[in-house]
Amino acid sequence: MPRTQSGGQPTIVSIAERAEVSIASVSRVLNGLGARRDTVERVERAAAELGYVPNAVARSLKDGRTRQLTFAMPDIGNPVYVAMVRAIQSVTKAAGYRLLLHSTDAVVDDELAVLRSLGDRTSDGLVICPIRITDEHVEALRTAAGPVVVIGSLPDDVPVDSVRADSVAGAALAVRHLHETGRRRIAFVNGPPDTVPGRNRDEGFRTAMAECGLVYDDALVVHTDFGIDSGAEAAERLLADDASRPDAVFCANDQLALGVARALHSRGLRIPEDVAVAGMDDSLLAQAGWPPLTSVDLGSTERGRHAAELLLERLRTPDGTHPLAPRTSTAPPRLVVRASTAPTAVNS
Amino acid sequence: MPRTQSGGQPTIVSIAERAEVSIASVSRVLNGLGARRDTVERVERAAAELGYVPNAVARSLKDGRTRQLTFAMPDIGNPVYVAMVRAIQSVTKAAGYRLLLHSTDAVVDDELAVLRSLGDRTSDGLVICPIRITDEHVEALRTAAGPVVVIGSLPDDVPVDSVRADSVAGAALAVRHLHETGRRRIAFVNGPPDTVPGRNRDEGFRTAMAECGLVYDDALVVHTDFGIDSGAEAAERLLADDASRPDAVFCANDQLALGVARALHSRGLRIPEDVAVAGMDDSLLAQAGWPPLTSVDLGSTERGRHAAELLLERLRTPDGTHPLAPRTSTAPPRLVVRASTAPTAVNS
Repeated sequence: MPRTQSGGQPTIVSIAERAEVSIASVSRVLNGLGARRDTVERVERAAAELGYVPNAVARSLKDGRTRQLTFAMPDIGNPVYVAMVRAIQSVTKAAGYRLLLHSTDAVVDDELAVLRSLGDRTSDGLVICPIRITDEHVEALRTAAGPVVVIGSLPDDVPVDSVRADSVAGAALAVRHLHETGRRRIAFVNGPPDTVPGRNRDEGFRTAMAECGLVYDDALVVHTDFGIDSGAEAAERLLADDASRPDAVFCANDQLALGVARALHSRGLRIPEDVAVAGMDDSLLAQAGWPPLTSVDLGSTERGRHAAELLLERLRTPDGTHPLAPRTSTAPPRLVVRASTAPTAVNS
Repeated sequence: MPRTQSGGQPTIVSIAERAEVSIASVSRVLNGLGARRDTVERVERAAAELGYVPNAVARSLKDGRTRQLTFAMPDIGNPVYVAMVRAIQSVTKAAGYRLLLHSTDAVVDDELAVLRSLGDRTSDGLVICPIRITDEHVEALRTAAGPVVVIGSLPDDVPVDSVRADSVAGAALAVRHLHETGRRRIAFVNGPPDTVPGRNRDEGFRTAMAECGLVYDDALVVHTDFGIDSGAEAAERLLADDASRPDAVFCANDQLALGVARALHSRGLRIPEDVAVAGMDDSLLAQAGWPPLTSVDLGSTERGRHAAELLLERLRTPDGTHPLAPRTSTAPPRLVVRASTAPTAVNS
């Protein structure tokens, strides 16, 4: 039977009382600093009798290290973050750290709580991926009690390491590809416009449409949540009027693209013959449906790996040396072309 | 600039030295046990100067509670575990606990490390979902330093709470449904047979095939890993010989079924007209592809919720009361029928 925790861990005081030695002696023995042999024996016996477990908490008080790192992500159900977890875990595990994960549901208070929990010393450092950066985030980052690396775009004056995607350029890659393969009525299903990913994708889409000489048509743009069902509902709106039907749909992530594909299939429209579909993130989901999805790889794996490396570098920087200046790196986007955007005989 | 942790947290000893008071006084002050006012002030000033943060670690030493719980799962990329995370998190959050997550990749040593880390007092309790139960698991469960709930099937004599799926009955539901809708050559794509899920699904498949008067044909059974690409490769093997082609494929999870569907589409075979496909888990992925998948819901959400409730109940049990006997509950499976197994004109 596992015993419950509610009785609490014995303290240095209760061990001293039971061993009938001074608190200073208990501290020395438990910290391995040496004491008379009979003192060591009395302390060890008392500690054992009280159920004292030499533990990470005590070790943390002693050397300030937990050998644990934390990754906080908005949504454990999004394969982009799964790719980041795998990348971060492989780097941190090789360095002897255990990785703790938090799924914050992009709730600002939860993100802030994780940032502030660095002061709790249950983790030596944090990689966090917020999808909005509020003033409170900036303040919590400035005053963080331990090293933090942000996966995402930070204001320039926040003195914290960050690794970002270039989703502006990524969205433009997809639009230019659709244009080059003969599509002219390109619809856009985006996530919430008040998030960093949503805003950047919108900027990339607008820029590339203008470059290609195509008009940004509000009737062909839907903002919704990032999810399969949201994608299907967005497609229903875009397809409601046959006369104005798009010949391509660019989606702000792969889940949205799978939803769009489902709506097209259910109306008997063919992909890519009738409507091309492109997603974003090149997650595992890009090959989950049929046909396999063209998608823009925003470097989730590279971003996770690089964030973990930056964090480890901070942890290795010895005290008293000149602090490292904050660093920012950007993972370049890459278009992965699959069957869902193949040029059709008519279009090509 | 977040400061690095490598210098370590000041100890009770270093605070006592700086404050020029006894270690016992520091311990009393930091534990809120009272002392002379000037002693309190000296300790607090020294603690502040040394950068001491009143922290969860210290609180944990004091009251034995961290207000954190842990969920360890084999694979963060599998939506079954995502559903469990969401369910566990909603229960534990409402009770005022933060949930830490571990993705163990089903590596036995990592699972054991998480079990043993309960002794580290960085978490008050653990829900763990191992896909194999080794003798070492049993030993680590018996000697766990805090309350544990297992999502999975345990040997009867392991005195730990558990919540299990009935995948034997679940697999049988799918096979009987395929038989009832006219399928006779039912193939089976299973996960590794040396895992609990793999073994149970195999038992359910064999039992139901016999009940339906169908022969278990080794040529129609493939054991592989649980994943989309593995499903596609398994289907290639099953479809290699047109003469012996199955008219249905039952898959041990939804990822395998998506892979099978992809292989069927790429050969120009129609689902369900040529081959019906059924998955298992009824995860979000069941509706990611086309056509939407028939799938067996094994109650991931219910299992997660119930495991969290059992854990909270253990944590509420006051010290010294009669310990609760270990409890086991089973979530009943449920067949969710969608287009991928619709009866065809010929078969129905």
